[in-house]
Amino acid sequence: MSPIPELPPLLYEDLVRAALREDLGVAGDLTSAAIVPADLTTTGQVLVRAPGRVAGLCAACRAFELLDPEARVDSIAGDGADVEPGTVIAEVTGRAQALLSAERTAMNLLGHLSGVATLTREVTLALQGLPTRVVCTRKTTPLLRALEKHAVRVGGGANHRFGLDDAVLIKDNHRAIAGSAVEAVRRARAHVGHLVKVEVEIEDLADLEGVLSLGVDAVLLDNMTPDQLRQAVAIVAGRALTEASGGVTAEGARAIAETGVDLISIGRLTHSAPALDVSFELSPRR
Amino acid sequence: MSPIPELPPLLYEDLVRAALREDLGVAGDLTSAAIVPADLTTTGQVLVRAPGRVAGLCAACRAFELLDPEARVDSIAGDGADVEPGTVIAEVTGRAQALLSAERTAMNLLGHLSGVATLTREVTLALQGLPTRVVCTRKTTPLLRALEKHAVRVGGGANHRFGLDDAVLIKDNHRAIAGSAVEAVRRARAHVGHLVKVEVEIEDLADLEGVLSLGVDAVLLDNMTPDQLRQAVAIVAGRALTEASGGVTAEGARAIAETGVDLISIGRLTHSAPALDVSFELSPRR
Amino acid sequence: MSPIPELPPLLYEDLVRAALREDLGVAGDLTSAAIVPADLTTTGQVLVRAPGRVAGLCAACRAFELLDPEARVDSIAGDGADVEPGTVIAEVTGRAQALLSAERTAMNLLGHLSGVATLTREVTLALQGLPTRVVCTRKTTPLLRALEKHAVRVGGGANHRFGLDDAVLIKDNHRAIAGSAVEAVRRARAHVGHLVKVEVEIEDLADLEGVLSLGVDAVLLDNMTPDQLRQAVAIVAGRALTEASGGVTAEGARAIAETGVDLISIGRLTHSAPALDVSFELSPRR
Amino acid sequence: MSPIPELPPLLYEDLVRAALREDLGVAGDLTSAAIVPADLTTTGQVLVRAPGRVAGLCAACRAFELLDPEARVDSIAGDGADVEPGTVIAEVTGRAQALLSAERTAMNLLGHLSGVATLTREVTLALQGLPTRVVCTRKTTPLLRALEKHAVRVGGGANHRFGLDDAVLIKDNHRAIAGSAVEAVRRARAHVGHLVKVEVEIEDLADLEGVLSLGVDAVLLDNMTPDQLRQAVAIVAGRALTEASGGVTAEGARAIAETGVDLISIGRLTHSAPALDVSFELSPRR
Amino acid sequence: MSPIPELPPLLYEDLVRAALREDLGVAGDLTSAAIVPADLTTTGQVLVRAPGRVAGLCAACRAFELLDPEARVDSIAGDGADVEPGTVIAEVTGRAQALLSAERTAMNLLGHLSGVATLTREVTLALQGLPTRVVCTRKTTPLLRALEKHAVRVGGGANHRFGLDDAVLIKDNHRAIAGSAVEAVRRARAHVGHLVKVEVEIEDLADLEGVLSLGVDAVLLDNMTPDQLRQAVAIVAGRALTEASGGVTAEGARAIAETGVDLISIGRLTHSAPALDVSFELSPRR
Amino acid sequence: MSPIPELPPLLYEDLVRAALREDLGVAGDLTSAAIVPADLTTTGQVLVRAPGRVAGLCAACRAFELLDPEARVDSIAGDGADVEPGTVIAEVTGRAQALLSAERTAMNLLGHLSGVATLTREVTLALQGLPTRVVCTRKTTPLLRALEKHAVRVGGGANHRFGLDDAVLIKDNHRAIAGSAVEAVRRARAHVGHLVKVEVEIEDLADLEGVLSLGVDAVLLDNMTPDQLRQAVAIVAGRALTEASGGVTAEGARAIAETGVDLISIGRLTHSAPALDVSFELSPRR
Repeated sequence: MSPIPELPPLLYEDLVRAALREDLGVAGDLTSAAIVPADLTTTGQVLVRAPGRVAGLCAACRAFELLDPEARVDSIAGDGADVEPGTVIAEVTGRAQALLSAERTAMNLLGHLSGVATLTREVTLALQGLPTRVVCTRKTTPLLRALEKHAVRVGGGANHRFGLDDAVLIKDNHRAIAGSAVEAVRRARAHVGHLVKVEVEIEDLADLEGVLSLGVDAVLLDNMTPDQLRQAVAIVAGRALTEASGGVTAEGARAIAETGVDLISIGRLTHSAPALDVSFELSPRR
Repeated sequence: MSPIPELPPLLYEDLVRAALREDLGVAGDLTSAAIVPADLTTTGQVLVRAPGRVAGLCAACRAFELLDPEARVDSIAGDGADVEPGTVIAEVTGRAQALLSAERTAMNLLGHLSGVATLTREVTLALQGLPTRVVCTRKTTPLLRALEKHAVRVGGGANHRFGLDDAVLIKDNHRAIAGSAVEAVRRARAHVGHLVKVEVEIEDLADLEGVLSLGVDAVLLDNMTPDQLRQAVAIVAGRALTEASGGVTAEGARAIAETGVDLISIGRLTHSAPALDVSFELSPRR
Repeated sequence: MSPIPELPPLLYEDLVRAALREDLGVAGDLTSAAIVPADLTTTGQVLVRAPGRVAGLCAACRAFELLDPEARVDSIAGDGADVEPGTVIAEVTGRAQALLSAERTAMNLLGHLSGVATLTREVTLALQGLPTRVVCTRKTTPLLRALEKHAVRVGGGANHRFGLDDAVLIKDNHRAIAGSAVEAVRRARAHVGHLVKVEVEIEDLADLEGVLSLGVDAVLLDNMTPDQLRQAVAIVAGRALTEASGGVTAEGARAIAETGVDLISIGRLTHSAPALDVSFELSPRR
Repeated sequence: MSPIPELPPLLYEDLVRAALREDLGVAGDLTSAAIVPADLTTTGQVLVRAPGRVAGLCAACRAFELLDPEARVDSIAGDGADVEPGTVIAEVTGRAQALLSAERTAMNLLGHLSGVATLTREVTLALQGLPTRVVCTRKTTPLLRALEKHAVRVGGGANHRFGLDDAVLIKDNHRAIAGSAVEAVRRARAHVGHLVKVEVEIEDLADLEGVLSLGVDAVLLDNMTPDQLRQAVAIVAGRALTEASGGVTAEGARAIAETGVDLISIGRLTHSAPALDVSFELSPRR
Repeated sequence: MSPIPELPPLLYEDLVRAALREDLGVAGDLTSAAIVPADLTTTGQVLVRAPGRVAGLCAACRAFELLDPEARVDSIAGDGADVEPGTVIAEVTGRAQALLSAERTAMNLLGHLSGVATLTREVTLALQGLPTRVVCTRKTTPLLRALEKHAVRVGGGANHRFGLDDAVLIKDNHRAIAGSAVEAVRRARAHVGHLVKVEVEIEDLADLEGVLSLGVDAVLLDNMTPDQLRQAVAIVAGRALTEASGGVTAEGARAIAETGVDLISIGRLTHSAPALDVSFELSPRR
Repeated sequence: MSPIPELPPLLYEDLVRAALREDLGVAGDLTSAAIVPADLTTTGQVLVRAPGRVAGLCAACRAFELLDPEARVDSIAGDGADVEPGTVIAEVTGRAQALLSAERTAMNLLGHLSGVATLTREVTLALQGLPTRVVCTRKTTPLLRALEKHAVRVGGGANHRFGLDDAVLIKDNHRAIAGSAVEAVRRARAHVGHLVKVEVEIEDLADLEGVLSLGVDAVLLDNMTPDQLRQAVAIVAGRALTEASGGVTAEGARAIAETGVDLISIGRLTHSAPALDVSFELSPRR
């Protein structure tokens, strides 16, 4: 696998800090303050307890570093690693109070993002040998978009739009207001900048020629049968990218990909991926 | 069902605003700006497309109100309603551009929180007739804790700790540092305020008497077999609450509840609930 | 002129609030507190004192509304209006203390953004009759990008990238690292999503064929002579958009446009536009 | 030149961080992520391409440091240096991805602030040999006031009020409400603290004696002819500072200064200074 | 008493919102959510239980309005009122849950600020008939400076500097670095703007002539005996304001004022004023 | 004294940063910028000038570190130390400008928090030999709760609730709405989580049996005479904690404690503790 670039911490550091504050509240970690000696330094292991693909390790471990700026994180199997239950993927050494106070925040991030990567991985494996790419959507968790999109890339998927601001995607509601898909595309082309791509959702294959003639970059084929998809791919004939969407599961993906669409977009990669089971265990003292 | 109190908007408004900014970026909603007339007012329907329990409707609809302070939200089936596919749960009237720009943020919140409530509901139904309560954990999504805990309540569950700051929960790592469960409880009791409860995770039933003699409020029985749980319940004999945890599924919950434990805590309620399928559709113009 | 959509207030409200705080400090408006009766309500006029095009009126007037939520703003000549010295473009009625405290913040925004629109207008007028479009760059004032890009649109220009996140623009530094323009484009194509366009800066016309064969969407021709530009346009032959840049002034723009380039990008539209002279005058009391 | 103190980073660090976020958005720097190897370290030069005076170098370079905390900035010609085209004023060594992602934010700040210093320098040079001081106004760019005021000092100018909170400045609107300049001054003197100075704008020289008798610290003479200014200076006779304002240009400043006014305030120093042309170039690899 | 202008809410609204969040945490008001019906509307009275002067009523009541935007606050005895135990100073009508959740935040602000006004009032009464003014210092509570300075004005006192940014105050540490008080004043005069006043702390009366000859605006006479103060006043002879400071109590203030100093500054007005006893009582239901 | 754990800086760092900004404003520290050479490094001493107990030293000194990240703080007598006038409790070495700019913010925090600890210490000493614990309330200064609660612990007291979110406390207003204390307790028990304790304020001793039978954890006895308290303690007979409150002073505390109550809560510990006199003095240069 070619390496997925790490996110710059500026893109997630405020999130991690806010998550720590959410957990610490005003009173802080009552349990650790009462039980753990302030000057105790220790080492803990970040452990994966189920098979899956790791994602978000840096963001997760930032939680430890924010509570103990002197903490040292040694990454053993970073983002993109496929691990078996019981694998230690990082070791963290620092003040024991800080590590325990950060543990849940770190594990919540790691478990969620690795869950996204693991589900994405599952789908991309199902398409092995086919050229179709798996992409995620804007159906992400509030404030986690940068990290979840990263996790999708780590899982072998690609990213669709990051927001309302980086491309045009004309959907049913826009089409209804414009009166037709063609008119909606026409308005989009007239208003957006020269570096903005335009994709349009097609409900009726009869609309395809019209929008293609206006030079759309991609067509979104929502909730179509494999037959309809095949037909659409044939009509488009390479003049635009074709994207299938609509309740796609890991099991159903291959049949859709075999219709020849370029992309399959799957909301559940980000909104319904079960968390990967991860934990943080203090190393036994020697 | 007795009504679950709404959250005060102060607890989630900043989150919704930040989520809108995440989606709008600097350029804003390119598609709506290009296609939708600025002065068009319209009505849209919030629709549930799968069976489930609604949660988070107010927080979700705040997205519409933040982009159009004049928008009117008419709630038809609010938090706690059990709905069938196709149910319209709210109607929103306002500037069309604003409604479409807020749509995804609103649906992401509603789908996620309703997913949490729906899964919780499923588990609580499985325990019908038994006194055992289902509780969630601190395994929540960063910055969504207040809303997810609310969704659990809406689903018929109860809340465990909200953070590190509102109760003591002694887990394996603390026990390891203190040397024993008893010593950990002793330290906690000595340090925390008079309105703070103390729960301790027990690995070995032999530890039960010791911690009970120190007056713990609850014991956490992690990853125990039904037999062990039954034994623990017998030893505790009402002197503290008993809580079972560890990979509990909706299917496995009843067997655990039948051991007589007071509480079953389930992380997946918040970290792995699949989103409920919801959408926002502009009403056909008349 | 077809109307330019207003920005959603969410995109600038925090900026205006922060600008008011910057001016008010901890002590607030000493002068108005000392001189203006707290209960005095008054009306003031927003006046343009030099010829130009108005932009940013809504954002500017939000300053008045933030200090007096009851204030009423009556817009007379909004964004896009070309005005002569002495034109009253809005009337604001509210608490006199609040209006005077907000005056400078409002005028600073209005003067700056109208200055951007006015300069842009000047350049677009110079190209009248030619198909070449004027675009701005990312050389914007920190935190004012959304508003400045809006002002450019109001002035008749178009927008280039809004940030590092919405398109790929390969410049000299990237090319140097990749080894060649072609290799840089190849890497970009391999990594970015299907809705992301790719533009590449060309220093040597010999590179054109290579990058065109990889399907770039636009080529940036920096600091080229009209002859070189003409040559480039001929080579590209419609296979990508052509963009000229490099110290273009209002005077020099037409000669460049006549080479047939599709776009001229001009940093000074946003970083060096002189402010339009605007002021806020309390109406004489009747 | 006696050195101008550096600003404490606390006064601008949040601005630089927010400006980086504005440019990075949610997706980050697509181009650098795709093209630049994550582990590549490089050195780049901050270059001035036009004659001018440098200002804001520390604030600008903070952008590099925020994206790469390990980056090393070697300042060669800092704030206050007068440089010729082609001068390298700093070298920055760090992770290439981070440097390229920060480049535009850094250059936007440096170009703008150096533009302010350069224009201020031009005006102060025009007054050489005269005791009159050049001061800026509150006509600054939102959120950049601390930095722009610093740039004015670096350019040889002085600062007028920093906000509504540090001195009283009675202008036409206040005078109109109070009924007369004298009454306005009386109210100000009665209400403000003992460490607050009071300046009053005078429209009619007949008002001068009245306000001087109340002990104003300065009089603002707006849009007066040199003859009127001379007359005002004679009447004031050192009892207060005299300040001329109103559309002063670098060319017209000397004639005004020769009237003997103590200060000339010029809004365009901050609101209309063209940016200085600066750039960041990766050093050729050796 | 001439009315003290209200502060613009922009100066304290964020503080009140943050204080509410500090009290509500993530879980919100457990008690009210459990006990108070969500739809119950009620009226409560803000009651003063000890003699004192009211200050901060608007800021305090903003807490109610932030939790219930529909709440109505009827102010009966606002800032500046001198009240006896048992006086109802405001009535608040709104959702009972919201009022009870905001109660403590509101009362904490009101009690603290009224405490400051009450102590200030006590000192100013002690000086009745004398021209000496009582001023507060920068020894304020973090983030409460605007409100505490307001409370001092409400109590009949005046404000000294609001921050490090609105005037120069040369103290012992600065003098030590500069080498002498005269040299410190010389440096200050050379660097600060024309609307900035300069005050210098004098330890040795022999320094007075030197600093007066440089035109300082005020001299701070710290920890001097009445005799020394009298001597200093005689030397200064109206050439600058004279300010006495150093552990002044309400009892000791008059003796100091009788030395003829213009100002007495008292840190304890803001850092040690006991809170006024205030409470919020729901009106008995009729 | 067993050591009181330090607070994690995350709980107060934003407060200290905001307090510095409140003091620095936009213009920064005019005095130090004018007088203190930028490159001067110096050492200063944190000095206590009155007898008392130190609290908040780390938070206070963070102010120095935030303005000079290279500053070195050597703590001599940290939180919990009882000091005599003239004691040097810390030495700080760093850039002189930064130290002087941070001085007031640091001393304001240290003086206030040490004042809280000193008053708490005074009360706890008054109870020596008795088992009754002194606790603080939610009558804290906005945004200082975490630090003030810490200072109370440092002074030998204990903490009551940290917020509305960590325990139930039923007061008169809740009781009035519920109709009776018993009904209020019943509702609380039915709704709150298993780790939440419930305390109820009792006005009439006749209510005691009812609430005890519902298993309340503590009863709050407000404004009762020693006789009433004694009676209440006898009725409760260990079935719940007993807490006395209501205008308790250091002098009156012992008599109350002797009634046998478990806890005495005192609002004035946090809302009315006079600041401890502390200062920061630059060491004489050697």
